[in-house]
Amino acid sequence: MILTRLDAIADLAQPALAARLQHLLDHKTKPLGSLGQLEALARQIGLVLHSEQPRLTQPQMVVFAADHGLAARGVSAFPSDVTWQMVENFLAGGAAVSVLARQHGLALTVVDAGVARDIAPRPGLLVRKVAPGTADSTQGPAMTPAQCEAAMAAGAEVVRSLPGNAVLLGEMGIGNTSAAALLMAKLTGLPLARCVGRGTGLDEAGLARKLAVLEAALQRHADVQAPLAVLAAVGGLEIAAMCGAVLEAAALDRVIVVDGFIASSAVLVAQALQPRVLQRCVFAHQSDESGHADMLAHMGVQALLKLNLRLGEGSGAALAWPLLDSACRILCEMASFESAGVSQPDDVAPAA
Amino acid sequence: MILTRLDAIADLAQPALAARLQHLLDHKTKPLGSLGQLEALARQIGLVLHSEQPRLTQPQMVVFAADHGLAARGVSAFPSDVTWQMVENFLAGGAAVSVLARQHGLALTVVDAGVARDIAPRPGLLVRKVAPGTADSTQGPAMTPAQCEAAMAAGAEVVRSLPGNAVLLGEMGIGNTSAAALLMAKLTGLPLARCVGRGTGLDEAGLARKLAVLEAALQRHADVQAPLAVLAAVGGLEIAAMCGAVLEAAALDRVIVVDGFIASSAVLVAQALQPRVLQRCVFAHQSDESGHADMLAHMGVQALLKLNLRLGEGSGAALAWPLLDSACRILCEMASFESAGVSQPDDVAPAA
Repeated sequence: MILTRLDAIADLAQPALAARLQHLLDHKTKPLGSLGQLEALARQIGLVLHSEQPRLTQPQMVVFAADHGLAARGVSAFPSDVTWQMVENFLAGGAAVSVLARQHGLALTVVDAGVARDIAPRPGLLVRKVAPGTADSTQGPAMTPAQCEAAMAAGAEVVRSLPGNAVLLGEMGIGNTSAAALLMAKLTGLPLARCVGRGTGLDEAGLARKLAVLEAALQRHADVQAPLAVLAAVGGLEIAAMCGAVLEAAALDRVIVVDGFIASSAVLVAQALQPRVLQRCVFAHQSDESGHADMLAHMGVQALLKLNLRLGEGSGAALAWPLLDSACRILCEMASFESAGVSQPDDVAPAA
Repeated sequence: MILTRLDAIADLAQPALAARLQHLLDHKTKPLGSLGQLEALARQIGLVLHSEQPRLTQPQMVVFAADHGLAARGVSAFPSDVTWQMVENFLAGGAAVSVLARQHGLALTVVDAGVARDIAPRPGLLVRKVAPGTADSTQGPAMTPAQCEAAMAAGAEVVRSLPGNAVLLGEMGIGNTSAAALLMAKLTGLPLARCVGRGTGLDEAGLARKLAVLEAALQRHADVQAPLAVLAAVGGLEIAAMCGAVLEAAALDRVIVVDGFIASSAVLVAQALQPRVLQRCVFAHQSDESGHADMLAHMGVQALLKLNLRLGEGSGAALAWPLLDSACRILCEMASFESAGVSQPDDVAPAA
């Protein structure tokens, strides 16, 4: 069971390595700290990969797809059929995440964690369907505990089966901003209105309807508190699978690139179970979905990009990917003041 | 003379093409507008390259280097020798911009527009030295009108000689945040204190000294108003060369990727001469140098990245480059709702 992996997620604080990474960055041929967030990223990747010269290998974009019982309540601008149609589009290479993964040489795997329609297995698709979508969480739990656990185990197994030292997490599921908003409201304690946004593009009336539906779901599960119980009550099969993927990737010390609002909600659950997962997570972008900024702030993390994206699929993770590669190259390829024979200001100590 | 090129910079408003680009983006398999700034970037590149299917070819990173008379007044944390030492580092492949250009397949050309020390010509270096650095602008104009014009012409000639349809602009010159701050103060009318920052890393005392020196330079040139006269009075040889490069690239309808504070100051001059240059400019990042946000706001433009970078060299332009490639790929490679057989919400008209 995936929860036995929680203890396998070690504290990455490695004072000697951290100091060595900082020393290396400080003596590269650039003003001290002048590469900003890229330097923080280099330190983080160095710690995750336990290396002063980290190299990202065989990066894996994994897109988890599933349907949502709540979709029948009109919480999305798109019909549920779009979930399986987009899975086909991912596999055919025409979706945003397909195009961006191709651009950056990311292997793309789509995981059917609970799409309502059956999709024929083929290269690039892993069928790990736990159920044909969740139940309507205004009426009862979205998942049984067994379904939630099975979805988490499937996500973990998929990550374990993939090569490389970095995984990028994306998702597809009509209605899943609703599930993510409910998880956020339950786990952060923020008012529901702060957690709910327009998703794929609801108008004012649609947003009001979504808020009312989610309010009903929250009331239905008012007594549920524990992270895993919350995940089962109001989450989604793809979110549970992503949560399992995050825990497994963390246990394996892989770099985890988190896409937007929904992928972050899976991390929100995972870090509630084991805060050390955050040491391995790189948040790719701050989504235009209104709750995302607050969700990131709740976890105390900062995203790399802010491009008003609100597409999901892993598209933001793919767009941020070259920055991770750059961070490694800064460490591995840049000259030091000493090696390049470049003068330093008096207040910087010479390289050791 | 470069100014004869001002009329060659056409208005890129192309209503039919703009409408077609918007239609294409709106019918790609994604919620309307959900790729945010990437969609705006795709529209812009389409207009610059006059194509619904734009492809960026043979992108050229050009780093202009020169020295500054003001450096002797202690406006920088680093000595002037670092200018030529970093040129050597660029050519040897060890600088941040070398590493990042290599990562993204950007051809790298370094232009000596006025480095104090002579640097031997070699592959990757173009010697277009107008003078061995500018004069001290607290004592008189930094450049004579003839020097300024020669630097601009050199920048234009370099761009014209390079292949491809996109140019990325970077720079190196100890003291050049001072020149850029003076240009900003003169051309925006903002208080000098809003324009001056810590550059490569001045402490409080250094910042106060820099501000006092620049205040003296401003007073020395209080009567100078015209953009080109301002450029000659307080600018730099590498900034003048970049200004010429921007005008020429604009006349050739190339996509211009602008790095940080100093590269933006060259665009600030260029757009004062011909506002239509901005139609071709992509601002790569908002620098941590304190005046940059105000400078971008003055031009009414928004940067792609905000990663607290303050290195220059073109490093930010290189980091943003994959986003331009992504924007083109969205247009060229993504499926439409119709082609992929994906359902749309009722309020989106079907693809024509």
